[in-house]
Amino acid sequence: MITRDEVRSWDAADPLAGFRDRFALPEGVIYLDGNSLGALPLQTAARLKTVVEQEWGEGLIRSWNDRDWVSAPRRVGAKIARLIGADEDEVVVADSTSVCLFKLLMAAGSAREGAILAESDNFPTDAHVAGRAAELLGRAYRPTPRERAVDALTGDIAAAVLTHVDYRTARRHDMAALNAKGVPIVWDLSHSVGAVPLNLGRDGAQLAVGCGYKFLNGGPGAPAFLYVARDLQAQLASPIAGWWGHKAPFAFSCDFEPAPGIDRFLSGTPAMLGLLALESGVDLMLESDAEARWDKSIRLHDLFAARIAALCPELERVTPDDPDARGSHIAFRHTNALAIVRALIERGVIGDFRTPDIARFGLTPLTLLYGNVWNATEVIAETIASGAWRDPRFLSGGVVT
Amino acid sequence: MITRDEVRSWDAADPLAGFRDRFALPEGVIYLDGNSLGALPLQTAARLKTVVEQEWGEGLIRSWNDRDWVSAPRRVGAKIARLIGADEDEVVVADSTSVCLFKLLMAAGSAREGAILAESDNFPTDAHVAGRAAELLGRAYRPTPRERAVDALTGDIAAAVLTHVDYRTARRHDMAALNAKGVPIVWDLSHSVGAVPLNLGRDGAQLAVGCGYKFLNGGPGAPAFLYVARDLQAQLASPIAGWWGHKAPFAFSCDFEPAPGIDRFLSGTPAMLGLLALESGVDLMLESDAEARWDKSIRLHDLFAARIAALCPELERVTPDDPDARGSHIAFRHTNALAIVRALIERGVIGDFRTPDIARFGLTPLTLLYGNVWNATEVIAETIASGAWRDPRFLSGGVVT
Repeated sequence: MITRDEVRSWDAADPLAGFRDRFALPEGVIYLDGNSLGALPLQTAARLKTVVEQEWGEGLIRSWNDRDWVSAPRRVGAKIARLIGADEDEVVVADSTSVCLFKLLMAAGSAREGAILAESDNFPTDAHVAGRAAELLGRAYRPTPRERAVDALTGDIAAAVLTHVDYRTARRHDMAALNAKGVPIVWDLSHSVGAVPLNLGRDGAQLAVGCGYKFLNGGPGAPAFLYVARDLQAQLASPIAGWWGHKAPFAFSCDFEPAPGIDRFLSGTPAMLGLLALESGVDLMLESDAEARWDKSIRLHDLFAARIAALCPELERVTPDDPDARGSHIAFRHTNALAIVRALIERGVIGDFRTPDIARFGLTPLTLLYGNVWNATEVIAETIASGAWRDPRFLSGGVVT
Repeated sequence: MITRDEVRSWDAADPLAGFRDRFALPEGVIYLDGNSLGALPLQTAARLKTVVEQEWGEGLIRSWNDRDWVSAPRRVGAKIARLIGADEDEVVVADSTSVCLFKLLMAAGSAREGAILAESDNFPTDAHVAGRAAELLGRAYRPTPRERAVDALTGDIAAAVLTHVDYRTARRHDMAALNAKGVPIVWDLSHSVGAVPLNLGRDGAQLAVGCGYKFLNGGPGAPAFLYVARDLQAQLASPIAGWWGHKAPFAFSCDFEPAPGIDRFLSGTPAMLGLLALESGVDLMLESDAEARWDKSIRLHDLFAARIAALCPELERVTPDDPDARGSHIAFRHTNALAIVRALIERGVIGDFRTPDIARFGLTPLTLLYGNVWNATEVIAETIASGAWRDPRFLSGGVVT
């Protein structure tokens, strides 16, 4: 068995340990939900103060030029490109993940005959967007269980949306193998970006979207990003042809001529507060070493898994053993997962519940110590052993996360 | 002629004069661009500090419930409803204006046979969105000059997008008369909301969208809002069926069942920083009297118009004389409008240029004194009389606003 002292020594030797002090983390809380809403980087609070008081308050409309707000969607996209193994002109920040997904799925679906495929057990928004996109395109909608996706990527599919890391089980698709099937796939990277190694270029990805408010620490409702491989950009048309997607937005022509590159997927005026908060979170992540992040993620997971297996085996782990086959969070199945998660939140261990029976814990290497995992698993074990979660106030009501 | 003393007495008697101190307005600037980016309300800087440091930083994921982030799209929508003469369950805040417009135009266009009509000389995004929506729906696209819109609203139109107040000339459509033609119209209220009297219910409006970052002072890229008359809501389907539009988003079902009411037009996770900044701006506006705002807007315009007519008649005013036929900004035509606007910005009088030859000045009653208009028109007259705008650095390059 791993001992407390060993865990202490891991923290002492952790090359990422210094990053924890760069975040605002409340006292008395072990935050294991950075995969739902990432923590606040201290520099983001300072950056937003400047954005609000100086750039908006003093600069006013002039800041679109003087503070270069106008190029922020591209600039932040280029930074995210470095995290996902894309080129800087292949990524742009825009809208929400759902809207970005709609844009790419409609664009890809319009370009080729066939059905629209989505995972039937995915995060719901992906299925909702895909089903409605199929209707609008007049195509068949083919919801498919995740484990059968690989066989379902046949020549009669126009476009598919697949989530790289599953939001419940953390199972990770083999991106290169699935791309090799030759069907245009829109990869949803929401539980991947900032969490697992990504190399979209090497793995032959054509299209992707991802979330800004989880592992990228962009703040609540941060804008999303979208990726289109360079060679495809000129062939695809956004369904939402707004003025920011025009090749010359400030010529104010009513004749739509799409921007030649990735900008064509922009629509309305970018959400500047959210976008600049996201930039600050991405900047912080780019200071850290990607390999060190992933190495620590694996060890956080495996420590968590070993402790739970030893202390409360009634929690059935659903995340894969093989690091190459999973994301960075850990999840367990329990009939009363909801009540357990609510009891844990009251005890300062914040994870989340995912229906029907999953307790999920985000393991974010920049904000967590190995000692946090040690302590959190102890609280989990005590909460289960004592039956504290059986309190009626934990057994009713919902959790919104 | 109006004298400086008279103008001083107007400011002394202005019931809205106190609101100016509620905004951060930089020294040495007369800001006449609140119709492009509204000024920063002081309370918004304070609110955002709380949102960032306490709600995000300390509350983390819990703030979705504990700080009621989850109901913000509806709550802020209900507040905006009071500004536009709608009921509180008819408005929701979401996405950008372009995306909101796309949603409503696709929804209305799907529900009825016929062409899609847009103004061919409108703010470009409206035409772009409409043209592409027509393509996706397989309908004819009918771009129509603004002044012919009234005659073009015939039985073979499925849906139209009309901008209530024109972004260049400030000409205002007669909303009630156009709605009476029986064609579903998506009203673009971007230059109307917070600027002119609106009563969508009384005037029989079915659908509308509007901008949060202009007269509502919501901050750069603030989210937009959309309005759907209650009786229509159940009949219309959003083209972007995201999880926030589900009737039970946190049940995480992949079967899409739209929310019964206005929520069905939500898609992804709301942009919380922008949304809460917008709420703060709307709250401030709701403290002021709508009639007093409009009365002052009229007087600001007419003072501006009289001064320019007297001091530099070479500026040809394009805004209508009749207040009932216009918005709250003032605009002039001049072959060298771009150079003039750039020279004025350097002199601290911030307005904006709209192609091909319009100099446009926003007149926002909560942030402007009559004395500001007196001084701004003096600077304009001097800039033109002296020919200072002929400097080469004003004659080349673009203005982004």
